[in-house]
Amino acid sequence: MSNTIGKLFTFTSFGESHGKGIGGIVDGCPPGIEIDETFIQNELNRRRPGQSAISTPRKEGDKVEFLSGIFDGKSTGTPIAFVIWNENQHSSDYDHLKEVYRPSHADFTYQQKYGIRDHRGGGRSSARETASRVVAGAIAKLALKNYGIDITAFTSQVGHIAMSQNFETADLSLIESNVVRCPQPEVAEKMIEYIKELKKEGDSIGGIISCVIKGVPVGLGEPIFDKLQARLAQAMLSINATHGFDYGRGFEGVSLKGSEMNDSFVKDGDKVSTKTNNSGGVQGGISNGQDIYFRVLFKPVATISKKQDTLDIHTNEVELEARGRHDPCVLPRAVPIVEAMAALTLIDLYLTKN
Amino acid sequence: MSNTIGKLFTFTSFGESHGKGIGGIVDGCPPGIEIDETFIQNELNRRRPGQSAISTPRKEGDKVEFLSGIFDGKSTGTPIAFVIWNENQHSSDYDHLKEVYRPSHADFTYQQKYGIRDHRGGGRSSARETASRVVAGAIAKLALKNYGIDITAFTSQVGHIAMSQNFETADLSLIESNVVRCPQPEVAEKMIEYIKELKKEGDSIGGIISCVIKGVPVGLGEPIFDKLQARLAQAMLSINATHGFDYGRGFEGVSLKGSEMNDSFVKDGDKVSTKTNNSGGVQGGISNGQDIYFRVLFKPVATISKKQDTLDIHTNEVELEARGRHDPCVLPRAVPIVEAMAALTLIDLYLTKN
Amino acid sequence: MSNTIGKLFTFTSFGESHGKGIGGIVDGCPPGIEIDETFIQNELNRRRPGQSAISTPRKEGDKVEFLSGIFDGKSTGTPIAFVIWNENQHSSDYDHLKEVYRPSHADFTYQQKYGIRDHRGGGRSSARETASRVVAGAIAKLALKNYGIDITAFTSQVGHIAMSQNFETADLSLIESNVVRCPQPEVAEKMIEYIKELKKEGDSIGGIISCVIKGVPVGLGEPIFDKLQARLAQAMLSINATHGFDYGRGFEGVSLKGSEMNDSFVKDGDKVSTKTNNSGGVQGGISNGQDIYFRVLFKPVATISKKQDTLDIHTNEVELEARGRHDPCVLPRAVPIVEAMAALTLIDLYLTKN
Amino acid sequence: MSNTIGKLFTFTSFGESHGKGIGGIVDGCPPGIEIDETFIQNELNRRRPGQSAISTPRKEGDKVEFLSGIFDGKSTGTPIAFVIWNENQHSSDYDHLKEVYRPSHADFTYQQKYGIRDHRGGGRSSARETASRVVAGAIAKLALKNYGIDITAFTSQVGHIAMSQNFETADLSLIESNVVRCPQPEVAEKMIEYIKELKKEGDSIGGIISCVIKGVPVGLGEPIFDKLQARLAQAMLSINATHGFDYGRGFEGVSLKGSEMNDSFVKDGDKVSTKTNNSGGVQGGISNGQDIYFRVLFKPVATISKKQDTLDIHTNEVELEARGRHDPCVLPRAVPIVEAMAALTLIDLYLTKN
Repeated sequence: MSNTIGKLFTFTSFGESHGKGIGGIVDGCPPGIEIDETFIQNELNRRRPGQSAISTPRKEGDKVEFLSGIFDGKSTGTPIAFVIWNENQHSSDYDHLKEVYRPSHADFTYQQKYGIRDHRGGGRSSARETASRVVAGAIAKLALKNYGIDITAFTSQVGHIAMSQNFETADLSLIESNVVRCPQPEVAEKMIEYIKELKKEGDSIGGIISCVIKGVPVGLGEPIFDKLQARLAQAMLSINATHGFDYGRGFEGVSLKGSEMNDSFVKDGDKVSTKTNNSGGVQGGISNGQDIYFRVLFKPVATISKKQDTLDIHTNEVELEARGRHDPCVLPRAVPIVEAMAALTLIDLYLTKN
Repeated sequence: MSNTIGKLFTFTSFGESHGKGIGGIVDGCPPGIEIDETFIQNELNRRRPGQSAISTPRKEGDKVEFLSGIFDGKSTGTPIAFVIWNENQHSSDYDHLKEVYRPSHADFTYQQKYGIRDHRGGGRSSARETASRVVAGAIAKLALKNYGIDITAFTSQVGHIAMSQNFETADLSLIESNVVRCPQPEVAEKMIEYIKELKKEGDSIGGIISCVIKGVPVGLGEPIFDKLQARLAQAMLSINATHGFDYGRGFEGVSLKGSEMNDSFVKDGDKVSTKTNNSGGVQGGISNGQDIYFRVLFKPVATISKKQDTLDIHTNEVELEARGRHDPCVLPRAVPIVEAMAALTLIDLYLTKN
Repeated sequence: MSNTIGKLFTFTSFGESHGKGIGGIVDGCPPGIEIDETFIQNELNRRRPGQSAISTPRKEGDKVEFLSGIFDGKSTGTPIAFVIWNENQHSSDYDHLKEVYRPSHADFTYQQKYGIRDHRGGGRSSARETASRVVAGAIAKLALKNYGIDITAFTSQVGHIAMSQNFETADLSLIESNVVRCPQPEVAEKMIEYIKELKKEGDSIGGIISCVIKGVPVGLGEPIFDKLQARLAQAMLSINATHGFDYGRGFEGVSLKGSEMNDSFVKDGDKVSTKTNNSGGVQGGISNGQDIYFRVLFKPVATISKKQDTLDIHTNEVELEARGRHDPCVLPRAVPIVEAMAALTLIDLYLTKN
Repeated sequence: MSNTIGKLFTFTSFGESHGKGIGGIVDGCPPGIEIDETFIQNELNRRRPGQSAISTPRKEGDKVEFLSGIFDGKSTGTPIAFVIWNENQHSSDYDHLKEVYRPSHADFTYQQKYGIRDHRGGGRSSARETASRVVAGAIAKLALKNYGIDITAFTSQVGHIAMSQNFETADLSLIESNVVRCPQPEVAEKMIEYIKELKKEGDSIGGIISCVIKGVPVGLGEPIFDKLQARLAQAMLSINATHGFDYGRGFEGVSLKGSEMNDSFVKDGDKVSTKTNNSGGVQGGISNGQDIYFRVLFKPVATISKKQDTLDIHTNEVELEARGRHDPCVLPRAVPIVEAMAALTLIDLYLTKN
């Protein structure tokens, strides 16, 4: 259950890491949107493993094939179904894990909840599922572009190495200029060095992805329970390995007083604007026309090459040694996933509003 | 729209700050649950303004009246409707705010979204709405108690003043022993001093509420989009004035490596347990039987007594001076709200699971 | 569960026949709609028992009280909650039924499903619940009026006595001119005679309510599963005592061939119209701009004054004799309920479309 | 929107008649159900065009391919996605219809609603879409079999030719013994003759499919709006070309008095049963353990070979002559669709109940 997100623009996801394929159905896409398949494939490429020296060496071709809902290059308002076929599956690579509960993986909880699981590559709990989200999110981005809404995410912290700039002071055009997707080049370099080091050690590291949404009209977000920030939070925490979310002045601003935090209203021509944007573009759960910005915390990937103690399904103690394919830092590849989930959230609220 | 939360155990909320009353409908409560009205009223009292010297002086009687769904003291499985009548409304107190957009309030966004709003006391956007959540959450708590699930929240940080203990090392029985609801007495005292000081200054302060859920069976939470943490995040970010959420080892653990973060499985008698609980009781979006713990960030209340510059609805610049009733720190009263939202989330996932 | 209907314009219903009151919450009503309380109360009066000699003698005052969502006489876009307080409850009148399973009533199924029930007057399963629907439906009607959509229902058959006219040939202004709400006066008289006769016999009778919806724009209804007729069918079959639904040329037209049934497209000025309207205003689940018309079948009310054999909750055989208050024919009072459910369906599809 | 049905066991459908393929995602199937692919393919074969002389000559291979959610032949509790690839598409066959609004088809309403449509073979509005429903329904049937619930539909009337037997008196084992799927052989013959005659005439005919559900436990169906019969009605009216629904003693029993219609409770061993079953197995919207039976009215297929007058998209009057492939009576092939929709409804209510 609950492989669907959204109310008017819904996305239903399917597929296991080592089944025939993964994919999904986007329902509720407005008709007449140009479905630029090159753009979508490019988004998918940004998430693909094996892009660089700091990623997993595992390669996935990841070509998306659309099955419905598009006619003459445009959305028709009917469901858009798509598949990303799994290839190069090497299911037998996972035979040694068939009976093992890997630490901090979902092996144990799936087995207990369902009484049965596809153990190959984590099955349904694999982060490979997020490739489908990137495709659906890319469709959402294409629709949002029509409405002037633009979403940009980037790696702002890896372990202890954090940017000193933020979304307003950094040059966001530099994001794709390095493999870690950090727009502050000298920090990016340090991040890359650190990740390489951890890769050698057989270890992994998490960090923070920051995101900014520009061009949002006043009025998106539904009180009471579907506040814009509430929906964003659910969307972000539904991504594998995420552990936290804040928006506007978040945890680092915990010491601010009301008089410091409040955003005074000011005139900007004949529009109402705010002097500061500590609220992160949202008031009372509704967008106020300012930039929406938020952060997402990722824990380190659970798959590491170091030896670990754990149990098998018979509760025997076993020693686990992962076999070489680990991804030391998932953040660079998670950047498009954060954008995709933000896009799915925004388009749904946009359509609800109107 | 979206005044409803939950899928099987749903809560629909209604009411404005200065209308006839607020309340809601709980639908999907299992039949046969003892509806202990004293317990529920007591939960409501914990949220009530005017409890102490560090709160707002505004008093609200806040008695809950049940209208349906209960027979012979037990839930019947039919909708439980309730009202909390508004009294002592002093609507005219708000006349001077009728045409003002208060900084960091929802006045502007509601007006823009709906073209009409009940300006008295913030209308629907008032935090008074959370009183209904506390009632619904108390019903959820009564149901969860039957299943052995227990939820406890407390104030762990006010501005820069943070507890040094956590949910495992603090004595949680001390939470209700002081007005700030912090279980570390010497820290509580400092928090209270600081809040009193800010009250005098006419200013406000935010902070962090921590929460722990004990007794959760393995298997709660639905992949992919209704992961337990995703649903908790939405619930928490739907509370007025919240700006962040993390669970398990959250933002403060951002530097941890995979080898430090991973929770090894170990035997605990004939049950599967984990050596550490950095995952916060959740793996792959599903509860693993360990304690679930998380934090919620609250910004300072936007209503302060200091003078502020802002605009009115005709975009004239005006100077705003709140008239005395401000609440310098909402955290103590928000403790039962966090618990209520956690309870609503857990009972819904519990019923979905079974 | 499932006391809510609708997706964008939702109505959640609560209350038992002999509890404190019944009522509900309308969520998603567009802002700025004039909430004409006199109109709404009048709709409620049309459903009220005790209106005429052919109805039940039981009287219910049925005054609606609004609790929220209305400001200066207009909807604000926030939830509209309302209560109809129960009065004159005579709960002890039902003591003799406490342990009886009345034939064709929901006593047995509720007891088995929930293990507990409020037996007084049928509790939640009482047709009294439909009063709340009439209020919600009246709000929907007020919104639809803004969009030019108008709904009219009438009694077209009682037992074997059927109108010879239909919605196009009858004078619909006569509906409220007689107590049975049939716009063909000579047929109405026969219906009234027949119902009086059955009342004397202590028996009851069902029949058919017909309904027409005028002014529907092209494009309402969502393929695939939310076809306009599918949503109408669910809405109608959710009314107590209904047993059937058809639209356009229904069951009586079962012998028509395709060449007789098909509606040819023709020009009507510069609009596209159809020569005939056998489709009942819907093609492919979407309104085509023609009149939508349908019929709803009601079985006879299960409560009769004749002696009946049945079982009690201990499965002892007992003889049941209802005590005088039975309603020999529910159709006249069901006319506003059919209209209300149609209005709730149409407004929801209207808002979804736009 | 609304290509999804169900709340706990959901089915989302996709695909156009002449796109790459049709299919869907079943989400919420309980884990551990044996997915008998031969059974599913066989159900699909029952719906396939070109089965007999009374059907359309158009042949569709219609092989289902499963993409996810099945491991070692069993459902895993994760989404089951499937595709039926379109073959032999002859899209150019539809070029002459590109600009025509076919009478009683969805061409006009889709074009108006979406501003764009895939005209080939009706695109999304094609009855081909129901093939996906049959696959999803077959999965639901497999799950229901585990719970002892069995669904059987048959053709009970074609035009004016009706069975004299009903589901209790007919020998249901004969349903598949003739091409019209009517269990009363002498009536079946007449139906077949009549259909052949109409085929020659280039015309089409509708009729009635009856369905019985056996083995339903007490307690399925959710008051108020999700009454069992309300959900069945929506499901049935969502099938292309359906125009009516009744259950229990339906429209033909409109003259029955309360004393004739009521079902007295009687003992059946130590179970509570009813003497008659006029209620059709449902009381108060909840199953009472008796057989559930209902009827679905189908209009004649709109595609006929006779000449028809209509308009094109420029509102020019045109004469339409379909080119030979018309299906004179869709009922035999609709039998498995009715069963599928009933199965999807029952499994969802079954899971909700428990």
